Amino acid sequence: MAIDDVLADLQNKIEKNLPEGVTISGVSFEGPQLVLYTEDPKKFADDGNIIRNLAKALRIRIAVRPDPKVLAEPEKSIEIIHKIVPADSVISNCYFDPDSGEVIIEAEKPGLVIGKHGDTLREITKEIGWIPKVARTPPIKSKTVKNVRDFMRNNLKERKEILRDVGRKIHRETTHTDQWIRVTGLGGSLEVGRSCYLLSTPESKIMIDCGVNLGAEDKTPYLYVPEVNNFSELDAVVLTHAHMDHQGLIPLLYKYGFDGPVYCTPPTRDMTVLLQLDYVDIASKEGKKVPYDSSTIQKELLHMIPLDYEEVTDIAPDMKLTFHNAGHIIGSAIAHFHIGDGLHNIVFTGDYKYERTRLFDPAVNRFPRVETVITEATYGNNNGYQTPLRDAEKNLQKIIRDTVNRGGAVLIPAFAVGRSQEVMIVLEEAIRKGYIPNVPVYLDGMIWEATAIHATHPEYLNSELKKQIFQKGQNPFLSESFKQVDSKDMREKILEEPHPCVIIATSGMMTGGPVMSYFYKLAPDERNTLVFVGYQADGTIGRRLQKGWSEIAVGNNNTVKVNMNVETIDGFSGHSDVRQLHEYIRKMQPKPERIFTVHGDEKSCIELAEALRKKNRIDAKPLVNLETFRIL
Amino acid sequence: MAIDDVLADLQNKIEKNLPEGVTISGVSFEGPQLVLYTEDPKKFADDGNIIRNLAKALRIRIAVRPDPKVLAEPEKSIEIIHKIVPADSVISNCYFDPDSGEVIIEAEKPGLVIGKHGDTLREITKEIGWIPKVARTPPIKSKTVKNVRDFMRNNLKERKEILRDVGRKIHRETTHTDQWIRVTGLGGSLEVGRSCYLLSTPESKIMIDCGVNLGAEDKTPYLYVPEVNNFSELDAVVLTHAHMDHQGLIPLLYKYGFDGPVYCTPPTRDMTVLLQLDYVDIASKEGKKVPYDSSTIQKELLHMIPLDYEEVTDIAPDMKLTFHNAGHIIGSAIAHFHIGDGLHNIVFTGDYKYERTRLFDPAVNRFPRVETVITEATYGNNNGYQTPLRDAEKNLQKIIRDTVNRGGAVLIPAFAVGRSQEVMIVLEEAIRKGYIPNVPVYLDGMIWEATAIHATHPEYLNSELKKQIFQKGQNPFLSESFKQVDSKDMREKILEEPHPCVIIATSGMMTGGPVMSYFYKLAPDERNTLVFVGYQADGTIGRRLQKGWSEIAVGNNNTVKVNMNVETIDGFSGHSDVRQLHEYIRKMQPKPERIFTVHGDEKSCIELAEALRKKNRIDAKPLVNLETFRIL
Ligand SMILES: [Zn+2]
Ligand SMILES: [Zn+2]
Ligand SMILES: [Zn+2]
Ligand SMILES: [Zn+2]
Ligand SMILES: [Zn+2]
Repeated sequence: MAIDDVLADLQNKIEKNLPEGVTISGVSFEGPQLVLYTEDPKKFADDGNIIRNLAKALRIRIAVRPDPKVLAEPEKSIEIIHKIVPADSVISNCYFDPDSGEVIIEAEKPGLVIGKHGDTLREITKEIGWIPKVARTPPIKSKTVKNVRDFMRNNLKERKEILRDVGRKIHRETTHTDQWIRVTGLGGSLEVGRSCYLLSTPESKIMIDCGVNLGAEDKTPYLYVPEVNNFSELDAVVLTHAHMDHQGLIPLLYKYGFDGPVYCTPPTRDMTVLLQLDYVDIASKEGKKVPYDSSTIQKELLHMIPLDYEEVTDIAPDMKLTFHNAGHIIGSAIAHFHIGDGLHNIVFTGDYKYERTRLFDPAVNRFPRVETVITEATYGNNNGYQTPLRDAEKNLQKIIRDTVNRGGAVLIPAFAVGRSQEVMIVLEEAIRKGYIPNVPVYLDGMIWEATAIHATHPEYLNSELKKQIFQKGQNPFLSESFKQVDSKDMREKILEEPHPCVIIATSGMMTGGPVMSYFYKLAPDERNTLVFVGYQADGTIGRRLQKGWSEIAVGNNNTVKVNMNVETIDGFSGHSDVRQLHEYIRKMQPKPERIFTVHGDEKSCIELAEALRKKNRIDAKPLVNLETFRIL
Repeated sequence: MAIDDVLADLQNKIEKNLPEGVTISGVSFEGPQLVLYTEDPKKFADDGNIIRNLAKALRIRIAVRPDPKVLAEPEKSIEIIHKIVPADSVISNCYFDPDSGEVIIEAEKPGLVIGKHGDTLREITKEIGWIPKVARTPPIKSKTVKNVRDFMRNNLKERKEILRDVGRKIHRETTHTDQWIRVTGLGGSLEVGRSCYLLSTPESKIMIDCGVNLGAEDKTPYLYVPEVNNFSELDAVVLTHAHMDHQGLIPLLYKYGFDGPVYCTPPTRDMTVLLQLDYVDIASKEGKKVPYDSSTIQKELLHMIPLDYEEVTDIAPDMKLTFHNAGHIIGSAIAHFHIGDGLHNIVFTGDYKYERTRLFDPAVNRFPRVETVITEATYGNNNGYQTPLRDAEKNLQKIIRDTVNRGGAVLIPAFAVGRSQEVMIVLEEAIRKGYIPNVPVYLDGMIWEATAIHATHPEYLNSELKKQIFQKGQNPFLSESFKQVDSKDMREKILEEPHPCVIIATSGMMTGGPVMSYFYKLAPDERNTLVFVGYQADGTIGRRLQKGWSEIAVGNNNTVKVNMNVETIDGFSGHSDVRQLHEYIRKMQPKPERIFTVHGDEKSCIELAEALRKKNRIDAKPLVNLETFRIL
């Protein structure tokens, strides 16, 4: 059936299913959902069951939009909104979009705008015609989030066209009678870095992640092979999380013809934009080549479709996607693909942590159905054990106590996203509970901005943190101990008068960034301590210091003498260790039939596959770059 | 380097390497060889070493063509040729091609036209300027061979352009620094039928075979997947042999954009054209759909580049192809690929027989180098034993003797190509040596034409047969016992007066064809015998008769009573049995490192791989349709 016939057919069915007196004036696809236009938005608002029943009957996600002619004037609408919504929700802004008929209400307490079961939202629609969408007023101002929201608001028309095209493609006619499912390794198999995979059926082609290997940037994913090199034939990119080794080359796809959506969670979208812009920015400063620029990142942003965890979404004629919490970094997702009508289910884990951490719940491993699992294997080798998190925390506290007590400063090199925030939460609690002295914790580099993004999406943190933030009103990120270092002046001032403190600064492997200024100043004094909480690659200054070098070259002719203590704490990793990888699979429900390992060096991928095969008596093997396997 | 610079560079090098006083007026690529134009063809003709040394120095195949201005008049040339060439070579025709400067001399004894070490050919060039090519006057007139030759002669100009384009593409600049080799199963893996494989490197894409599954024609190779669906990006098709399950869909490639060459042996070319035209013809008579017509076959023919066994040929910037005898049917080849400059060597066996048969030498398994083998596995399962050939022959002789002695006729359903000729040779010898009575052997269906193609290419038969034909002048195919049934009248006449005889007729599984007329007439008489020498698929009349059915339906309401004897002789297969498959690999020199099995049902491919892995301690596994494996 041609797509317009599909739509006509749907409109027909909808009209038959509508209660007496409720009418629609048109239907259209918008991304993965079907939009109904109506002159009676109030009727839909009155009865939430109308949409729910329609969605169930038609097995499709449905949104209702008011016909433009029933919309109240924006100024009048604002007045009405403020009358309906309780004042202690603290509305900071309302944005009207005449094309979608939506009004975005930014408030400090979105729950109060929504009301019980969405009652308040429905009342708003009833009164003003506009469909309210609620957004949280960020508690810490994130420039990235503001820029993303502004950009989307300024490009509503193009955005709408993109969503319409995506929707029509998703619901296109299927053409093949063959049934098969294949997965192709395009990068990140038997290695870490440049993660990129292709999931294909006779009907559709989905790319999963498209990363860059920051250690060896010439080693890009194999995007030139015929399986993918016609980017315009890709239905979508599914992005598991915002680390550069998973998303760093997505803009390149848009530069060379890709025109489909990127599906990811809302935090992944914000964080991806932040990291990509930073990547382009640093590269241009260092005179390095990045194969795209900020305009390409904008194009990508316009095509990103945020999906929350547990939202079942059509992404191709024969494929449904559901994201689940992966526990790795904010917004990190396990992608569950349901293919065909009950034909096969694939769980693509991305990077995951199968343990409750300070920030996140453990990765999800219960699914309605699952036959094939593609799992990461970073610590999959037989010796891939990590220190338990609680022990790592205690070690860190002790080091800080000892250093501060002798009048020293603690310097922690860290990546902007993930471990920095984990360490922050540990420190906030330790200070609050008096486990360590109440010293300032300086955050330098992109850490503050990344933290602001965390604060914007508290619903992506673990249940305990959420409770702490929402019910107790105690947002640990807002602790007064944290000081954002937002200028060179401030950094110099901190260094001029050394004092007991903790400094968390980028880059994580001391390959550059503000951490270096702190290091040069703090290194000669034996009262200070340098603490590594993340992996240090060979050839980096971080690795040298770990190995015990006592002098480090600075510039051309100078060296700095290293008298400060150097400590390494493992256990803060966002990846499952080998025990957790095994437990994750062993406890998976239902039990999968087949496993592929990826995202680990050769030893890790091979040993994990072998161990899983033996322990669970199921087919398990590593995926290989440039190889294609039949899943069905 | 751009291709014209490559040519200029080559011309330069050639001029430096030429002996004093020998000059060339230009160079160009023509298919896989480099053509030199010269005004001194006599000088090149005088000294065969000039070209040999050049080819060695430049590592490229070289041909010399006279500059048009030095060519003698055709009529004058014919006179001179007849003066130079001994009369007992019996020249039947001379064709002049002014574009290539070639004259094709058709003679009954080509060796006499060539002379010792090519002396006579060189003398001809010296005298008339034209470059002589020698072709055999077919001893049995093959319509196909005549049509192919006529067609090529009538399309010399287009042919020349095609060859030039192919040549320029082969020697194009390489563009990647990556090194990898992949093989993709597109059909014929874990199954028999629709054989199709893709061999790819960063530089080139070679399709190996492209067959049709005659049992299930909707099951075509997976040509729509992105790895191959842009046919214009294929560098070449390498065709192992003329069976429909290996070449049946090649014309389709040309219909949808392929414009490159098909490499195959000369007999494979002739036989392929015969079988494809017959396929199209029968289908149109039966109202079935074939996805191409004779004009597409002609396009394919124009793009076919015949290569003899053991001829090392550049087919892509990073690939050399050499065909070796496969012992399966006439012209069947094992394809040896040398990739990169000593990077890797792949042997693709196609169908092969590792045993000397009446027609062919055993398949070659010695190569300069080989790391990866892709082997057929038709009889690869652990019970895939076949009766030894000599026993099969004796069985057949006994059945014929017994039947003839009681006044009966022997009916042998057979495919046109392969087993028919094998049985013919057995019968010719048996009659000549008196093992069976001297009765007529009728050949009906396409068998005669296929036999004529065998007779045209005696150099593709085994050494014993060649000796018999060339040295003893005893061509068994010309035996007077063989009678071509070339009309309905003749067939009816044979059936009107039943008499002791042998009838070999198509189709091989009694799914139609002339064999059915004989069967209906001969079935009721218990003196006659039906002998199966080939595989009978489930659901065919052949299979039913094998199982012992005593009545067979004819048309709508009639049946024929089967009183004739029904015998099955296995052992005439053109495929290696499980022992021969193992021996072929075990004795391969050098020893390969890795094996893939194809062209067998699931059991055969899996069991052969497992047995080879255990016996030879090398990596061995089945290829899978739609899967891609890294070879390097
Ligand atoms: Zn990650
Ligand atoms: Zn990763
Ligand atoms: Zn064959
Ligand atoms: Zn075959
Ligand atoms: Zn062409």
